[in-house]
Amino acid sequence: MAAIKEYYTIGLHDTDAAGILYFANQFRIVHVAYERLLDRIGYPLRQIIRDTVFLIPVVHAEADFHQPLTMGDTVEIALSIAAIGESSFTLAYRLYSLDGDLVGSAGTVHVMADGKTKTPIPLPPDFKNRLRELME
Amino acid sequence: MAAIKEYYTIGLHDTDAAGILYFANQFRIVHVAYERLLDRIGYPLRQIIRDTVFLIPVVHAEADFHQPLTMGDTVEIALSIAAIGESSFTLAYRLYSLDGDLVGSAGTVHVMADGKTKTPIPLPPDFKNRLRELME
Amino acid sequence: MAAIKEYYTIGLHDTDAAGILYFANQFRIVHVAYERLLDRIGYPLRQIIRDTVFLIPVVHAEADFHQPLTMGDTVEIALSIAAIGESSFTLAYRLYSLDGDLVGSAGTVHVMADGKTKTPIPLPPDFKNRLRELME
Amino acid sequence: MAAIKEYYTIGLHDTDAAGILYFANQFRIVHVAYERLLDRIGYPLRQIIRDTVFLIPVVHAEADFHQPLTMGDTVEIALSIAAIGESSFTLAYRLYSLDGDLVGSAGTVHVMADGKTKTPIPLPPDFKNRLRELME
Repeated sequence: MAAIKEYYTIGLHDTDAAGILYFANQFRIVHVAYERLLDRIGYPLRQIIRDTVFLIPVVHAEADFHQPLTMGDTVEIALSIAAIGESSFTLAYRLYSLDGDLVGSAGTVHVMADGKTKTPIPLPPDFKNRLRELME
Repeated sequence: MAAIKEYYTIGLHDTDAAGILYFANQFRIVHVAYERLLDRIGYPLRQIIRDTVFLIPVVHAEADFHQPLTMGDTVEIALSIAAIGESSFTLAYRLYSLDGDLVGSAGTVHVMADGKTKTPIPLPPDFKNRLRELME
Repeated sequence: MAAIKEYYTIGLHDTDAAGILYFANQFRIVHVAYERLLDRIGYPLRQIIRDTVFLIPVVHAEADFHQPLTMGDTVEIALSIAAIGESSFTLAYRLYSLDGDLVGSAGTVHVMADGKTKTPIPLPPDFKNRLRELME
Repeated sequence: MAAIKEYYTIGLHDTDAAGILYFANQFRIVHVAYERLLDRIGYPLRQIIRDTVFLIPVVHAEADFHQPLTMGDTVEIALSIAAIGESSFTLAYRLYSLDGDLVGSAGTVHVMADGKTKTPIPLPPDFKNRLRELME
């Protein structure tokens, strides 16, 4: 089950001269759903960045493009938590047309790092618990 | 050996409030090297889009982020042709700092499709040959 | 009175390493309100682009940045129609914080052009009337 | 005379479904020339952002779009310093096609602000002198 469901309408700025969603923009679109997830678990990204106690850089990202999306298309973005590791977590995103067709998918891996040393650290227990709650 | 080598300096617009390259922009940066590849083999993307005889949408994209890149960093982008299939090809990109460190990598899979029916078609022989020449 | 009111929350991708909204993204944000306006008057941009009977390129754009916006800030975008000419129209956008402070503003001038000749043409009467209705 | 001359080739990511440069991207393209200017006068933006002694936010930006630019078009960007004030400076950008046609123009106003109080401060004398040298 999706932890977060968002809706997004493809804008002119998302498209390219081939008339469809420019592929890299799909990553931007799903990242907004991740920002909503962080809000939901009480760790808004703006605060994480401001506090710099820890960082959560994206270390891997991938996406599949099943159907071309064009301007004005509204997609549902379903974010689910695919895995929670010692110091990382993996998110899976599925993009559906309003007809329910899977039009795209994506995945991102985030590593928790110390704000000063920038080396990986274990996920803080409270953060991990809240992620886990949304995983179930 | 890389088919294409490009240099790119991270601009302010590439970064985000965390002070580093916004991950999705790495895809944009490597795509420019792909555009140079198409120029090189005599199939400029602008012409492909204009002619609409065939399309080459990205159907899969992935990237790894080894080291954070910050504003003003110059990277070398080395594009190589990883695989050539019946109607698709796979590109691999490696991003190096000027010190020679591998700071990121990416891959894209492109499928050749008919401009009208939008269904996969075999790579045109001339296109395939030119790609193959750069693969060796 | 605003013809269109939209809300937008600044995402990580909107910001830059200075920690604030990258200035050029304000233009992108207000353009989405313009896309909503075209939907509202029955001329969705996707259809205009598809039909290519006429084009409405932006010929001038300007913006003022009154207060820095940071990630997670939600702004209200109020679009009003500032002027309707023979073959052009001018839009004015005001961005407010949720406290009601004017944090930014923008303006765009759009010229109606023939889809084939690309030369200016008078605004179609129906299009002009619908714009005028929202101006009052 | 232009203080900075840069060349830029419109990439797929710069265009939109109307087949031309998405207007807001022209601001991004000219800002890169400004980043080169700061490098040239010995105040690289990455260092300004890192030191946070002062900030130079854009407070106003405007652009004109004379001719549509399409993918693969190379433009020359000529940046000149239009005005130097007490605590601000104004830049003017002209974009030329390789045929020498003026295809676009832009202007940005930057205000020097204290890194802590965020209030305007006089341009540091050395900074001002270096700008002035490039103005002549």
